[in-house]
Amino acid sequence: MHTLQTEIICIGTEIVSGSLLNTNASYISNELLKLGIETQKFTTVPDEPNLLSRAIKSAIKTADLTFLTGGLGPTFDDITLNTLAKTLNRKLTLKKDILRNIQTHFNKQGIVMPKDNIRQAYIPQGSTAIKNEIGTAPGLIMKYNKRTIIALPGPPGEVAPMMEESIIPFIKQRFKTTKIIKTRILKITGLAESQVNELVKDILGGSPGLSLGIYAHPGQIDIKITATAPTLKEAEKLISSCEERIRQRLGDYIFTTDKQTLEEVVAQLLFKNKKTLSVAESCTGGLLTNRLTNISGSSKYLIASVIAYSNKAKTEVLKLPKDIIQKYGAVSKETALFMAKNIKRKTKSDLGISITGIAGPTGGTKEKPVGLVYISLITEKQQMTKEFHFTGSRETIKLKSTQAALDIIRKSLLKTNE
Amino acid sequence: MHTLQTEIICIGTEIVSGSLLNTNASYISNELLKLGIETQKFTTVPDEPNLLSRAIKSAIKTADLTFLTGGLGPTFDDITLNTLAKTLNRKLTLKKDILRNIQTHFNKQGIVMPKDNIRQAYIPQGSTAIKNEIGTAPGLIMKYNKRTIIALPGPPGEVAPMMEESIIPFIKQRFKTTKIIKTRILKITGLAESQVNELVKDILGGSPGLSLGIYAHPGQIDIKITATAPTLKEAEKLISSCEERIRQRLGDYIFTTDKQTLEEVVAQLLFKNKKTLSVAESCTGGLLTNRLTNISGSSKYLIASVIAYSNKAKTEVLKLPKDIIQKYGAVSKETALFMAKNIKRKTKSDLGISITGIAGPTGGTKEKPVGLVYISLITEKQQMTKEFHFTGSRETIKLKSTQAALDIIRKSLLKTNE
Repeated sequence: MHTLQTEIICIGTEIVSGSLLNTNASYISNELLKLGIETQKFTTVPDEPNLLSRAIKSAIKTADLTFLTGGLGPTFDDITLNTLAKTLNRKLTLKKDILRNIQTHFNKQGIVMPKDNIRQAYIPQGSTAIKNEIGTAPGLIMKYNKRTIIALPGPPGEVAPMMEESIIPFIKQRFKTTKIIKTRILKITGLAESQVNELVKDILGGSPGLSLGIYAHPGQIDIKITATAPTLKEAEKLISSCEERIRQRLGDYIFTTDKQTLEEVVAQLLFKNKKTLSVAESCTGGLLTNRLTNISGSSKYLIASVIAYSNKAKTEVLKLPKDIIQKYGAVSKETALFMAKNIKRKTKSDLGISITGIAGPTGGTKEKPVGLVYISLITEKQQMTKEFHFTGSRETIKLKSTQAALDIIRKSLLKTNE
Repeated sequence: MHTLQTEIICIGTEIVSGSLLNTNASYISNELLKLGIETQKFTTVPDEPNLLSRAIKSAIKTADLTFLTGGLGPTFDDITLNTLAKTLNRKLTLKKDILRNIQTHFNKQGIVMPKDNIRQAYIPQGSTAIKNEIGTAPGLIMKYNKRTIIALPGPPGEVAPMMEESIIPFIKQRFKTTKIIKTRILKITGLAESQVNELVKDILGGSPGLSLGIYAHPGQIDIKITATAPTLKEAEKLISSCEERIRQRLGDYIFTTDKQTLEEVVAQLLFKNKKTLSVAESCTGGLLTNRLTNISGSSKYLIASVIAYSNKAKTEVLKLPKDIIQKYGAVSKETALFMAKNIKRKTKSDLGISITGIAGPTGGTKEKPVGLVYISLITEKQQMTKEFHFTGSRETIKLKSTQAALDIIRKSLLKTNE
């Protein structure tokens, strides 16, 4: 069987000069992979007709399917349509329905279409225009002998909806893809990469149609399961059985799958259990509260947060006994516990969580090195303090501390449900 | 004069499949641009010898300088050295000094070198190895007829130091680059893109050797000045005179140049003026405090922060009079002012800043729509409240609000200095 050959060409001087990081090629190839289509090559060229023309010629020699992104705008340095037409000996013809769409786009904003935008309505003969609901540049699908060429605009926010609404359905129908690739990500916190690896390494080798990858992030490990099968149903079955095996080993360490974040999981649990939370942060400087409030509606569960960055704030705002800080230090189990207790009492919340530690790079000592962090949680039934030793930059230590704190809240709320 | 032709080839199945976003090409081309060398093409291929071989052949047809990154690791799917040697008919030969470096790398960690790593010490005849201080894979510089080929490992953390220490000095000497490209970024806040554009548009066209670009971010506009000149001194002179012209128009709206952030500027001003700050946040949920504490040593100026997300927290933790919230609402000038006053008084700080608003997407009304934000600042001498109407997603509104708050603090501290 002939395997479909695919190339993605990105056009933009700002990309080749290193001013702009190109994300389109990665996005498109990931979408194609879900349809079982593997990409053989990415090429990026500047806004120069000769270089683009050479890239197009080289691509269509071998590629059944070529994507072009970028260079469809209205200005003189948008060269894609012109170059494509010249390279493949096609005339550019005015499409009146596209022109009307562009005019409407401007009229909606109360603006008359600038003259330059008329260029965007000229597309090479023998191509089908693809509607762009967000910008003015239409995309196109063009057949050239047995090859298919698809052109899309540059802005990633325009590429994604055009792929979803028009291109993917077209490809599914045109290439009658015979295999499906499906992925699922299991997100884990509270274990190190080597521990996760040890626990699942015999599954890691994979089995027919399945492959696994482990990816480490600060305070989080992702296991990516990829299944290849003739149908979506079979791919999902493969993934589910593999997920089940991994869950038997990792249990509650898996906090969610796919796109959900840890703070979203915690928010859901707080909503579900109708619990309120207050926060006392020191070394994380508001990052935990910021993550908790990135979720719309968070005012329903988050009562208040005090960022007691200085000792003065710990004693005067959080009302910590001065002798506790003097005796044990601002970074200690005792201080952490008092912080959580006092914020809970002060705000009458159901849960009180606190973080105190040394985020570095300065401020560490031999006894209390950079990365030492204490986290306390107080609920109606429970009080606990955990000690952590994190590594990494200031921002990494802050991030890891908030992961650990969110996970402590999560586990406590899971227990409530048991 | 012959313009140097440059191509960058990246090798990695994980890139072409969309699992990993490639940043090496962008980084390398940006570094080359500083030397006056423009890149003509990026290519990315999977770990497949045939596809890589084809890409190498195509590159050396026209490129004086070809970069390869990735595929230098010790495992079977690291194909770069082998493919390069085969494609250019060079033998792979064992370099004993490289082998010793690799062995030392492992010994330092108390590990005996795994057998597979010996592969990394075989490099194509006629090439010079480039030391890698971070990983085990050495890079190489190879001359092939009049062409130069440079191979570097895949991890960006290894690429950057190798470029700085070895590759850039080599290129400077080898290609005797005759022009220098230098850039400076002026960072602006408090003005919209169209306002900045209006103020500097007659300069925007540039003059010989100079070009300008405007880039919009949430709550921030960057003007990038690019100068091309035969020497660094001349390039710097061009930039300085252009910067001077822009500063005459934009004055204090420019808060810094190049890599500094707005929070770093504010931190510097607080340090310099020996002032302390406390924060009362509502809709920004800790983001302002988090930004202020991303700077090491921030405990010297930041006393405390209260994130009074609920009304209960506003009255009970910040001690706002209940009738103020009832009469004017939680999102109002009056509430903002009381928040700033009370946090300043409570913590005895020199400055008190507050933010209250509606970050959305829910919670807006006709009178108080999503994006309405009030920011108050109280100092020993001054009290002020500003009203803003921001647009965008929840995260964008949060970010824009913190930009505005930081800018209010900055401007107030600049006045203190006058």
